[in-house]
Amino acid sequence: MAGNSFGIIFKITTYGESHGKGIGAVIDGCPSGIALSSQDFESEMGRRRPGQGGFDTPRKEEDAVEIQSGVFEGLTTGAPISLFIPSRDARSKSYEMLKSIFRPGHADYTYFKKYGHFDFHGAGRYSARETAARVAAGVVAEKVLGPVGMRVTACTIELGGISVESVDMNLVNSSKLYCPDPKAELLMEEALKKARADGDSLGGVVEVKVMGCPAGLGEPVFDRLDADLAKAVMSIGAVKGVEIGAGFEAARLKGSENNDPITPRGFKTNRAGGILGGISNGDEIIIRAAVKPIPSIGIEQETIDREGNPATIKMAGRFDVCAIPRVIPVIEAMVKLTLVDHWMRACVSKNNFIAETQRK
Amino acid sequence: MAGNSFGIIFKITTYGESHGKGIGAVIDGCPSGIALSSQDFESEMGRRRPGQGGFDTPRKEEDAVEIQSGVFEGLTTGAPISLFIPSRDARSKSYEMLKSIFRPGHADYTYFKKYGHFDFHGAGRYSARETAARVAAGVVAEKVLGPVGMRVTACTIELGGISVESVDMNLVNSSKLYCPDPKAELLMEEALKKARADGDSLGGVVEVKVMGCPAGLGEPVFDRLDADLAKAVMSIGAVKGVEIGAGFEAARLKGSENNDPITPRGFKTNRAGGILGGISNGDEIIIRAAVKPIPSIGIEQETIDREGNPATIKMAGRFDVCAIPRVIPVIEAMVKLTLVDHWMRACVSKNNFIAETQRK
Amino acid sequence: MAGNSFGIIFKITTYGESHGKGIGAVIDGCPSGIALSSQDFESEMGRRRPGQGGFDTPRKEEDAVEIQSGVFEGLTTGAPISLFIPSRDARSKSYEMLKSIFRPGHADYTYFKKYGHFDFHGAGRYSARETAARVAAGVVAEKVLGPVGMRVTACTIELGGISVESVDMNLVNSSKLYCPDPKAELLMEEALKKARADGDSLGGVVEVKVMGCPAGLGEPVFDRLDADLAKAVMSIGAVKGVEIGAGFEAARLKGSENNDPITPRGFKTNRAGGILGGISNGDEIIIRAAVKPIPSIGIEQETIDREGNPATIKMAGRFDVCAIPRVIPVIEAMVKLTLVDHWMRACVSKNNFIAETQRK
Amino acid sequence: MAGNSFGIIFKITTYGESHGKGIGAVIDGCPSGIALSSQDFESEMGRRRPGQGGFDTPRKEEDAVEIQSGVFEGLTTGAPISLFIPSRDARSKSYEMLKSIFRPGHADYTYFKKYGHFDFHGAGRYSARETAARVAAGVVAEKVLGPVGMRVTACTIELGGISVESVDMNLVNSSKLYCPDPKAELLMEEALKKARADGDSLGGVVEVKVMGCPAGLGEPVFDRLDADLAKAVMSIGAVKGVEIGAGFEAARLKGSENNDPITPRGFKTNRAGGILGGISNGDEIIIRAAVKPIPSIGIEQETIDREGNPATIKMAGRFDVCAIPRVIPVIEAMVKLTLVDHWMRACVSKNNFIAETQRK
Repeated sequence: MAGNSFGIIFKITTYGESHGKGIGAVIDGCPSGIALSSQDFESEMGRRRPGQGGFDTPRKEEDAVEIQSGVFEGLTTGAPISLFIPSRDARSKSYEMLKSIFRPGHADYTYFKKYGHFDFHGAGRYSARETAARVAAGVVAEKVLGPVGMRVTACTIELGGISVESVDMNLVNSSKLYCPDPKAELLMEEALKKARADGDSLGGVVEVKVMGCPAGLGEPVFDRLDADLAKAVMSIGAVKGVEIGAGFEAARLKGSENNDPITPRGFKTNRAGGILGGISNGDEIIIRAAVKPIPSIGIEQETIDREGNPATIKMAGRFDVCAIPRVIPVIEAMVKLTLVDHWMRACVSKNNFIAETQRK
Repeated sequence: MAGNSFGIIFKITTYGESHGKGIGAVIDGCPSGIALSSQDFESEMGRRRPGQGGFDTPRKEEDAVEIQSGVFEGLTTGAPISLFIPSRDARSKSYEMLKSIFRPGHADYTYFKKYGHFDFHGAGRYSARETAARVAAGVVAEKVLGPVGMRVTACTIELGGISVESVDMNLVNSSKLYCPDPKAELLMEEALKKARADGDSLGGVVEVKVMGCPAGLGEPVFDRLDADLAKAVMSIGAVKGVEIGAGFEAARLKGSENNDPITPRGFKTNRAGGILGGISNGDEIIIRAAVKPIPSIGIEQETIDREGNPATIKMAGRFDVCAIPRVIPVIEAMVKLTLVDHWMRACVSKNNFIAETQRK
Repeated sequence: MAGNSFGIIFKITTYGESHGKGIGAVIDGCPSGIALSSQDFESEMGRRRPGQGGFDTPRKEEDAVEIQSGVFEGLTTGAPISLFIPSRDARSKSYEMLKSIFRPGHADYTYFKKYGHFDFHGAGRYSARETAARVAAGVVAEKVLGPVGMRVTACTIELGGISVESVDMNLVNSSKLYCPDPKAELLMEEALKKARADGDSLGGVVEVKVMGCPAGLGEPVFDRLDADLAKAVMSIGAVKGVEIGAGFEAARLKGSENNDPITPRGFKTNRAGGILGGISNGDEIIIRAAVKPIPSIGIEQETIDREGNPATIKMAGRFDVCAIPRVIPVIEAMVKLTLVDHWMRACVSKNNFIAETQRK
Repeated sequence: MAGNSFGIIFKITTYGESHGKGIGAVIDGCPSGIALSSQDFESEMGRRRPGQGGFDTPRKEEDAVEIQSGVFEGLTTGAPISLFIPSRDARSKSYEMLKSIFRPGHADYTYFKKYGHFDFHGAGRYSARETAARVAAGVVAEKVLGPVGMRVTACTIELGGISVESVDMNLVNSSKLYCPDPKAELLMEEALKKARADGDSLGGVVEVKVMGCPAGLGEPVFDRLDADLAKAVMSIGAVKGVEIGAGFEAARLKGSENNDPITPRGFKTNRAGGILGGISNGDEIIIRAAVKPIPSIGIEQETIDREGNPATIKMAGRFDVCAIPRVIPVIEAMVKLTLVDHWMRACVSKNNFIAETQRK
């Protein structure tokens, strides 16, 4: 039942399958008067594209975003913005062999159980390709967040069991792995090479920082900012865990250690990760996501076919070794989409609807 | 902006503040024909009530649930079910002193920033008392889940830094701390006593297991079962992290280790935690929640008042030392509410709407 | 499936049955800082109450509204506002005889078909008593609309086939029938007396005028202001038709007659009824609702029982002869609830979310 | 704020402007396993296309519907179905002259007030072209309704003040004006010719009949079937009034006349129009819509420009004289979309979720 929309005021609906005609997102609720062109999408779509970092599938996707509606003479109009990303490279033949076998760790089995079929052409709706629509929508979200002063940056703090020991956010953008610690990055690259040689894959932990978020975002008791961020990030296929601020570490602290003292100049520490009682407190928001290793591996695995008979599978071809770094712009996009919706919702909550009359 | 509803088909809306007239939940979308009486709520409400376990606030709340609508001659009618829990013990005086000081770790500061006020009478809407309405609604959810065969059980696997070393689920219900390991429980009790003596508080980790969940629950790409579970659990004030299955540990595994092999008799392992691609796979669902230490402590803390002047605060009176065990029925309730909504949504997705005609 | 909520930003959820413990409305999304007390409801609840106008059921209902949450020290807090109206007069015995017979024109038959039961105690959820919750919620809506300058007034322009020939809105409030034409009112009263003597009932047409609505309310293409007003008014049990501006008469006009010429001082005519393309144009909004005759009559009617056997029914006791005037405050409330939600949505659409930063 | 979606379970979101790249609809929540191809859309899209009936704009639009997602090997998959209708004929030049003048009866003025701009290229989002996306979505709705046995048929019962005197539904499909009375049709055609010669336009009344709708559709108290049908039909630009069954005529009947007697073989009359208490009663559903005359006329009209200066406008070129017959498939589509959503919602309400387990 209808589960492909996200957001209340800034609402996106996505569609499309890998190896279909294309994928897209319709954004309903974007404010009018914002400059938007196809070029705005290039850099983010490039970051998500395979082949970045030298560790990923060399399949070529151009991922050009076509604006089909909602923009007139270069400005958003307030009408729905339809973003379409045509598929350039729809070779479905190579997947034919997977027609009847459930790949371990993939959603083949559950889609088959739920919908009575599974789309063997590169995973269909549950392919990572679906996330391109999220990244495109995130670019539009950024257009609202940027001028407000919010900045969302994610980096890799752990990969293949290797953790960063220092964090220099200035290094993130020049790092192929979005890693803020050059020493750790070298070890991560080693680990990736080894995994590739073994036909295996790796996971990691991504940390997102939101700077410039004003206090007041979040709509308790259910649509808390942390709750909606958790949903947003967990809705990405590769993510198996989410934490805010001190997160699981907070479970090991005492109250006297975990509480952030408040001073006239702000919070002394930030174990809360910028969110108290489900509402942003004006401090940096900190989210961490656990990214599982990619399930497609070149090692033989035990499985069953559609009829339930035992089978084995060993993926041929070249697959990504790690969802990081490609998942990073997707995580950022989901965080941005959550923030823009909550920013607009918070404006409603703060709005003096009576004074509004005078502004007309 | 309106954030006090949860669920799409089985939709709850909660209201009420601590020290107000009472709190309540309205359930819209409960199937008709289900037996329901006030007595059905007693046991769960009792589990949530302070004073359980001997470690908690001795404040007496009876927490009797009144069914105000939606039940006729003992059966649900399909109309909205209004559950009301009157407050018995609304002594607001003892909080008067907190009128102008923000308590560290609490939502005083963010509510003040968002709504322009804060309710100093025991935290108002963001008091833990609000969760009683969730527990009451969870009892109704259980009425649907039970006959389907789903069973939700939570236990304490870590408290104050002490982890369980063995898990015997049969011990959970007889344990004051819902702890499946009696040795660990003794150490946890020691830690609680010490924290109490120090005026400090502790956190922990709760693990939820869902048995009997059929394959097919979850509505990708956004309303995935894991995403909605993450939101549900993270919407509880004390929770700062959520993971599914191997969770953050999955980030350290290789694909060959993390993938669950499939056999004709089911999955060989369960690192996925019962969810693949956002859809339940028929295996046990495993969720873990990081519970932070309670922010109210009897140790002096640095803070500010409403005008931004430096201040210190030291909570007097008797407070809970740890949100566990009282948060356990709340976590279970949120998991149940997510499951019942997704169960009904999955029935829609699986429904043969055409064949439905014949059944009329 | 969950259909008891109305509105997106200013969202109400109602519950309760006639002859149950009471009925209520939970408002989620009301701005904070608005003065609200139980006394605010008295006048509107009085207008809806039976016994008004001398033509209605003499059953005594006090309809006192209890504010259970969301108000602190006399001001709304931004948290959900729970309004509860306890039932004082729950005599269900007199309805016992209706246990197994479907009353023509009532929803007994369809509720039985849908939910597998029908509540013979005075119609249960589909009793007109349910509308008291709407009127109560409308009072809170008014608290937002009033200061903005919006004023909603309904009057009776037709009753029992008698139409008004002149309209003096100043007479409406002093008229028992909310009739703006004293001559017509006399004839209407005659018609009501005759219908009462015959044991029969009458219908009529209500016209609603909204003054002071600024241009810009309405969210095309589906959530147009006229579309949502039509839904709001048609959601009242007695209403069988809705029109805006010239309405059905517009179908008989030529374009050159129906178009409202625009001048620097505004629209020259108002056949559009204040709404163009689904968006308010700043002119007076005009809505008309067709109110059917009350189905409960003291004349024998043909029907069937639960088992499908032929039966006859003749309602005993004293029933209202006409839903007018009691339905008038209900129609006004639904219009207000639609306007307040669209007013807040329009503020979102107009909002300069970027400039918002500076206002914080 | 986000108002371009319709439906809860079978949810559509539309986008696109006239003279843009195209328009589209994304359907989220369509059951899987339904045969669907591009050809399925041809006949309905043809009915909506200009040039039908010989009375309309001769502008050529091919309106071919491309299925971009959600269908695999000819069957729906349960994933969102994206329908795209590329624009073939985007000549915007001829509209350049309208850049700064508000056309009376159109939404130029209100869009400008709401969004701060208006799209002079053929009305942009509020062009009738937008309705093509609704018709396309309605074709998919029909795929669910057809096998259930529901049949939606609309006809013209009044045009330019000429009413039908007899109704033979067999004649509707062979009539250019969907008129069930050949004598009236001749007079209507005369009226259309005269209006065209005068440069004027006409309105009319459309009646929709739904046959085969089972009892039980509708979700009180707000999401009643009649309320949602009213919203659906009123959300079409040309519609200014909606009534169900006897509609406004019911306001003139007595209860003894308006109540439909019930017999073991069904309802004796159908003044209720097939809906009681907001729920379908199994009888034919009857809806009537008032269609206003098209505002674009070749007669000089008084108006203002963007700066508020007086101006006159006289539309050149060839415009439709009457929205009928082109609006007929749009009204049918909106009725179908309402019915399919309510059919699925009613299945939820009727569902024995517990017995569902056995069916898995």
